[in-house]
Amino acid sequence: MIEKKILLTDCPDDKGLIAKITNICYKHQLNILHNNEFVDFETKHFFMRTELEGIFNEATLLEDLKYSLLEGTHCRLIGTKRKRIVILVTKEAHCLGDILMKNYYGALDVEIAAVIGNHDNLRELVERFNIPFHLVSHEGLTRIEHDKLLAEKIDEYTPDYIVLAKYIRVLNPEFVARYPNRVINIHHSFLPAFIGAKPYQQAYKRGVKIIGATAHFINNELDQGPIIMQNVINVDHTYSAEAMMRAGRDVEKTVLSRALDLALHDRIFVYKNKTVVL
Amino acid sequence: MIEKKILLTDCPDDKGLIAKITNICYKHQLNILHNNEFVDFETKHFFMRTELEGIFNEATLLEDLKYSLLEGTHCRLIGTKRKRIVILVTKEAHCLGDILMKNYYGALDVEIAAVIGNHDNLRELVERFNIPFHLVSHEGLTRIEHDKLLAEKIDEYTPDYIVLAKYIRVLNPEFVARYPNRVINIHHSFLPAFIGAKPYQQAYKRGVKIIGATAHFINNELDQGPIIMQNVINVDHTYSAEAMMRAGRDVEKTVLSRALDLALHDRIFVYKNKTVVL
Amino acid sequence: MIEKKILLTDCPDDKGLIAKITNICYKHQLNILHNNEFVDFETKHFFMRTELEGIFNEATLLEDLKYSLLEGTHCRLIGTKRKRIVILVTKEAHCLGDILMKNYYGALDVEIAAVIGNHDNLRELVERFNIPFHLVSHEGLTRIEHDKLLAEKIDEYTPDYIVLAKYIRVLNPEFVARYPNRVINIHHSFLPAFIGAKPYQQAYKRGVKIIGATAHFINNELDQGPIIMQNVINVDHTYSAEAMMRAGRDVEKTVLSRALDLALHDRIFVYKNKTVVL
Amino acid sequence: MIEKKILLTDCPDDKGLIAKITNICYKHQLNILHNNEFVDFETKHFFMRTELEGIFNEATLLEDLKYSLLEGTHCRLIGTKRKRIVILVTKEAHCLGDILMKNYYGALDVEIAAVIGNHDNLRELVERFNIPFHLVSHEGLTRIEHDKLLAEKIDEYTPDYIVLAKYIRVLNPEFVARYPNRVINIHHSFLPAFIGAKPYQQAYKRGVKIIGATAHFINNELDQGPIIMQNVINVDHTYSAEAMMRAGRDVEKTVLSRALDLALHDRIFVYKNKTVVL
Repeated sequence: MIEKKILLTDCPDDKGLIAKITNICYKHQLNILHNNEFVDFETKHFFMRTELEGIFNEATLLEDLKYSLLEGTHCRLIGTKRKRIVILVTKEAHCLGDILMKNYYGALDVEIAAVIGNHDNLRELVERFNIPFHLVSHEGLTRIEHDKLLAEKIDEYTPDYIVLAKYIRVLNPEFVARYPNRVINIHHSFLPAFIGAKPYQQAYKRGVKIIGATAHFINNELDQGPIIMQNVINVDHTYSAEAMMRAGRDVEKTVLSRALDLALHDRIFVYKNKTVVL
Repeated sequence: MIEKKILLTDCPDDKGLIAKITNICYKHQLNILHNNEFVDFETKHFFMRTELEGIFNEATLLEDLKYSLLEGTHCRLIGTKRKRIVILVTKEAHCLGDILMKNYYGALDVEIAAVIGNHDNLRELVERFNIPFHLVSHEGLTRIEHDKLLAEKIDEYTPDYIVLAKYIRVLNPEFVARYPNRVINIHHSFLPAFIGAKPYQQAYKRGVKIIGATAHFINNELDQGPIIMQNVINVDHTYSAEAMMRAGRDVEKTVLSRALDLALHDRIFVYKNKTVVL
Repeated sequence: MIEKKILLTDCPDDKGLIAKITNICYKHQLNILHNNEFVDFETKHFFMRTELEGIFNEATLLEDLKYSLLEGTHCRLIGTKRKRIVILVTKEAHCLGDILMKNYYGALDVEIAAVIGNHDNLRELVERFNIPFHLVSHEGLTRIEHDKLLAEKIDEYTPDYIVLAKYIRVLNPEFVARYPNRVINIHHSFLPAFIGAKPYQQAYKRGVKIIGATAHFINNELDQGPIIMQNVINVDHTYSAEAMMRAGRDVEKTVLSRALDLALHDRIFVYKNKTVVL
Repeated sequence: MIEKKILLTDCPDDKGLIAKITNICYKHQLNILHNNEFVDFETKHFFMRTELEGIFNEATLLEDLKYSLLEGTHCRLIGTKRKRIVILVTKEAHCLGDILMKNYYGALDVEIAAVIGNHDNLRELVERFNIPFHLVSHEGLTRIEHDKLLAEKIDEYTPDYIVLAKYIRVLNPEFVARYPNRVINIHHSFLPAFIGAKPYQQAYKRGVKIIGATAHFINNELDQGPIIMQNVINVDHTYSAEAMMRAGRDVEKTVLSRALDLALHDRIFVYKNKTVVL
């Protein structure tokens, strides 16, 4: 059966890497639809994303690649079946709403397995789209306890990615470690400007003329994870902090859903706390 | 003689301010070409910029305004004669070059009285445009001593504004206090991200997807002065710090010359370490 | 009772207009929250939008303005009650979905009275938001007949504005004349490039590097009405026409809902087939 | 001797192309620094740009490629020596000035062999940069005669590219045919909007909210050649046609010099009147 798969390769740079990998694909009679590669000359590291089409003998293909390439090479072959996500929210609807709506009309090809909120007010919106909503309140719980409940609920759905669609609580290191490079957050500033709480208040106070939003994978330092995508809009002295917040919503939602789209298409490598997007 | 002048008013907000001011202009038979106002509701402060045309009796006009408005009101009437600037540089040519070139073809209506460098390498470029270049080296001098020499040289030219076109030394508080809201700097990052030295290195290290430039008035805290204008460009993982620096030049030069243009047209109020641009 | 209202003035330019109008407001003890004015020097026409707060004696205020200003002046005083719209759609969900969602979370302060489609497929989405959906099929009808049915259905709801959220049929002149400057359309190109059908196909064929969207009021010439707002995104050779269409959706929906927002806040004057947005 | 060269391949798509080409490079012990490829699935055409480093046996390499690949394949191996341009101008200085200045400070790595004007007013600026300026006036000549004189003057310098830096005359088909895909023009609109003369006047009249600039190779139809790069800026109702023109200059010059930079780095394939930029 003719299928499409994506081969992701990442390894120390070496002569002839493209030749070796594409040769093996050729010998397997696989057609290359797209091939993007990048060498980070600072660290001498090689990244390649190859979209393949043909009849796959997956075990042999990976064996051949392993045999042909150096140690330290990571090759992953990823099928193109629909990925599954769980979305975490607090109270704001705009990022969640955009993902729900885009999924509805086919612009985000993803299965939204569930939405989990630490408040209940978005339940109605989610249920309109026939998606399960779970309230996992943090009331009376320590962060560790709450995150544990979240993780248990998340794990019921075995998602590929967890999307923090304006989930405003900080997650503890254990939670982060459980889902490495699988938790995508939207921060409502142009990072690294205005880390932490109330970035629009900070932006207003500083008198900036541009505000932005940043989608990133979370790691153990607040707002310090690998950046996937950023975008900005112009503001001026007529914008109150509240007006910046309102204007920023369209940027936040667009940046988050585009970052998610990159993840869903296996286009992101994480390396040295940065992303290589191929 | 029919002239154009700009009336800048800034005062605590009050009922009827626009009516009172425009009435006085009307009684003076002055025509309003453009009128822009802004009220900062947080601090209840009023700003207005009025472009007037007619025969001015300047003393009476200001007297009438003073009489009619509350105490604490600042009214300035500014003629439209060409302003004069002195440019400070270190070694990089792009911001300086853009101002020289725009001035050459009439896109920046300003008299460039002189360029002062703490290195000599831009002399040749400046002299091609028949503008005096002065080397004021910092070698062997304390910052205070050097800044004093700079100020003496600057003051020979009585400039309206001083433009730091990639002048990379920090100026001491006395220098700053001497020219309040008259020294325009270009910082090669999207402030407040990447304050201080080597912002492109910092941006590269952080893996940002957008870089920017910020034109601001200098004050006593490094890169903390009132922001006049910002702009950005997209970058990605293929950009080294060096490539970011190269790509950033066009943004830096454009932001600086547009900020300067706003200053030359008396469109900037500074208030609470922010700018109101009317 | 203290209210907010918006005074829109548009008339041939004359000396003292701002003074006269703001004086009358002052005499009525109305506070000016925002005042924006514009003079088109080519046609010598004056526009002003004044946000007022106070206790309104509307009849006297308009009388005073009428008495004080020249003939040919249009003054309208508009209350700030929530406006009502009817949305027309065909099959695509993204623009409709964005308006529904923004209205749901309070980012568009508008009453969506009804959605009318010439196809039925968006009914389910609309009804999820508890808004009436009407199918007015064009099957077997002339354009005149179909537009007449549309108008009858629209008029049941007495909307302030009619929003064409990817309604892909051309409306006849009689329909257009019935709702002057009240029908807002989104065209999926950067007008005037790619007028008419299949703009993304045209853009692909031409090999452009930027695509855009244009929100405009409709008039009797296809895609020639007054432009309210435009925005763009970068594309490159890797974009098929289909990929451009997908990428364009976020621009289309954002441009349309921002243009609608301007209309809802009475910020648009139409003059000489252009818009003045104050 | 270790050198860098660029291999440009373009041919009908086929299985194994990347493998075959990179294999040959590998056998020649050439290191691939960057490799970018693109397949146009509509026309089934393959494009690849490969930056190579090593000791080149150029004849054998091209022979091997020719032997290994199908007929209809174009392979070009391009050295990285500095390219040479001739610039054509009329009266406006901003695009020319930006190229001169960028070349001065090393941001455009190119030899500006000469500038040719059909007016004389830019001579002084050019000569400040120690570059020959030639006046080739069109006075009293037919277009054919004038273009012939231009071509003769240009050919004295054997340039790689000819840059029309606001050269406002239309060039005849013979001239165009003489330099296929080697003449880069800047058009001061967002093509295909506002083809032909006075695009800012057209844009003003139409009331657009964004204006742009387009760099393209010229072909025989006015403003219809393959687009290399475009960019835009926001405008509003306060912009006269003249103000649009002034604001547009920074976009024009930036777009032209960036398009030129792409050409200088051999990153542009022209195919079906479009560009593939790798």
